[in-house]
Amino acid sequence: MQNQTVEVTLGKRSYDILIGSGLVVSAGKEIARRFPGKRVVVVTDENVAALHLGMLTQSLRDSGIDVVPIVVKAGEKSKCFETLEAVTSNILDNRMERGDFVIAFGGGVVGDLAGFAAGIVRRGMNLIQIPTSLLAQVDSSVGGKTGIDTRQGKNLIGVFYQPKLVIADTEILDTLPEREFRAGYAEVAKYGLINQPDFFAWLEKNWKQIFLGGHERVEAIARSCRSKADVVAHDERETGERALLNLGHTFGHALETVTNYDSNRLVHGEGVSIGMVLAYQFSNFLGLCPADVATRVETHLNSVGLPVALQDVPGGVPDAETLMKIISQDKKVEHGSLTFILTRGLGQSFIAKNVPPEKVLTFLKQKLGEK
Amino acid sequence: MQNQTVEVTLGKRSYDILIGSGLVVSAGKEIARRFPGKRVVVVTDENVAALHLGMLTQSLRDSGIDVVPIVVKAGEKSKCFETLEAVTSNILDNRMERGDFVIAFGGGVVGDLAGFAAGIVRRGMNLIQIPTSLLAQVDSSVGGKTGIDTRQGKNLIGVFYQPKLVIADTEILDTLPEREFRAGYAEVAKYGLINQPDFFAWLEKNWKQIFLGGHERVEAIARSCRSKADVVAHDERETGERALLNLGHTFGHALETVTNYDSNRLVHGEGVSIGMVLAYQFSNFLGLCPADVATRVETHLNSVGLPVALQDVPGGVPDAETLMKIISQDKKVEHGSLTFILTRGLGQSFIAKNVPPEKVLTFLKQKLGEK
Repeated sequence: MQNQTVEVTLGKRSYDILIGSGLVVSAGKEIARRFPGKRVVVVTDENVAALHLGMLTQSLRDSGIDVVPIVVKAGEKSKCFETLEAVTSNILDNRMERGDFVIAFGGGVVGDLAGFAAGIVRRGMNLIQIPTSLLAQVDSSVGGKTGIDTRQGKNLIGVFYQPKLVIADTEILDTLPEREFRAGYAEVAKYGLINQPDFFAWLEKNWKQIFLGGHERVEAIARSCRSKADVVAHDERETGERALLNLGHTFGHALETVTNYDSNRLVHGEGVSIGMVLAYQFSNFLGLCPADVATRVETHLNSVGLPVALQDVPGGVPDAETLMKIISQDKKVEHGSLTFILTRGLGQSFIAKNVPPEKVLTFLKQKLGEK
Repeated sequence: MQNQTVEVTLGKRSYDILIGSGLVVSAGKEIARRFPGKRVVVVTDENVAALHLGMLTQSLRDSGIDVVPIVVKAGEKSKCFETLEAVTSNILDNRMERGDFVIAFGGGVVGDLAGFAAGIVRRGMNLIQIPTSLLAQVDSSVGGKTGIDTRQGKNLIGVFYQPKLVIADTEILDTLPEREFRAGYAEVAKYGLINQPDFFAWLEKNWKQIFLGGHERVEAIARSCRSKADVVAHDERETGERALLNLGHTFGHALETVTNYDSNRLVHGEGVSIGMVLAYQFSNFLGLCPADVATRVETHLNSVGLPVALQDVPGGVPDAETLMKIISQDKKVEHGSLTFILTRGLGQSFIAKNVPPEKVLTFLKQKLGEK
């Protein structure tokens, strides 16, 4: 099966994303070839460690690389100051130098935490991302956003810090629970819905193969990474068009908030799935997007098994007024005006500033069958 | 009295350093003019707050700027994870946005801590440095190094993060204890000793005026900032020539370590003063630099009232072997080889890699009168 390479173009800080099956086994050789003579810290979580850490450390050691593993607890709670301090202290205790590498080996949580640690130890060590979830492979491991959560919210503390290399092993995704894979798929579909209608049409035809593995999975991940890489190359620090990547995220975050980030009820990708459908329907409500396009988006995500409506949230959601209050408090609200990613058709999304809050409220009331 | 402006040239991230007397009083007007409509957090310490915070907040509020002050304890101990977390949490509680400003108002400790906080809140807020010590004005506030200390060492956790503006009020230095001003002067002299013999000669003639205040002080600070700005513009992340700024710092850090960073015994600039004299003498010992040049350096720093010899450290220093062990553990040691800043003459310093440790040991033994 063919591997693919996507370059993230950022001048001197450009880097490759390698995508293919079995790349963890060959990671040692690849890293030794690209970065000879470096020591490595592997940061991972208990779950990934149990399944895959042995494979990675053996690959590194077989290539003569000195490896120190650091295992944190699985779950979002590890994205905190306390764990960050513990990880950085462990790295320093092992006398890692600035030219040495931190490998973030895990899903989004590990990538955000270990990436942040790499960004601040000795004011920036080298970083490699080896994402082990579909979500991390197509989204969080690419683009340099790192961070931790605080009581004020998620990802409010962090840095933009680009890796030197991303290795996306598509085979490792076979060990993911299906629900988690499916949630990651929402972010794959997102790239089609942002600005690539042909990719969305391809997904409609090929999604089953992507779930099964094989070259369609490699292709879907590579196209997703290429989409994200393009956006990041033009707007690394999200001062403009990078905001397009937030399609579905304003509604999605609100749903994550009302379910208290309880993954038994809703995970991020599921919130994004509902959020994207709502974004398309809201665009139709505003007279921007044809109704059949919104229906097409809903139909596809529904076929895949993703939730697509407010009513799909297990345990239900509060009334429209409450949802509206949460949306207004979201970080993307600036000086009282609402910014949404809206669309004029399939794959024709755009950044809409100054969306009238009362329109959002009326739309939500309609969706919830309130008067 | 004339003000001076020095630009730090870093492409899109270029910024001005304003140097002059009374600039804190006019800071509000300057900031409102350059960055209209922004809110401001002022991070400072108890000592600076008692003397100057009212003046700064009034200036900001008079210009219509919304100000939140955050006061930390004075002293190096505030450069820790705990205080960093408290400061960032306070900033978030006050709902500061990414475009709002953190002002670091204080000496090196406040600049490093608040600069780091600004660099990680929402992955980077805007930052203004208003340094209140001579050391911070000519060194730590310029160039973007920020950080905190850990039990493994000083400044091992941090980011490179450039301010949008630096305001160096030369009049505010009148409230500094003379010993602290003098210690900062060591870093001024350093710029002459690195690569500007004419500046060093000018300092030999004018140092008394600099201590008294007046336009010589403005001139000395502006020339120092210009020197540092030049180096930073060429090597922002210290991969090469920026290391020249460490002249005197290898010996200096060792002396800070043996005195347990006890400021009653030795402050940073005093360590640097002794370290620079030793660097010149060691260069002479290696046959690189004429003896009379080393003597000239020692004579000037001694006239100013700075310590210039190992014997000047209050409480004494350990033997040469112990000093050598500390130097070897210093962060500038890579793969067993020693890197020193040496010199071939007045203001002709260079980065020397692979300095033989036994030469350093023999030199130290000689200085300490050991056999």
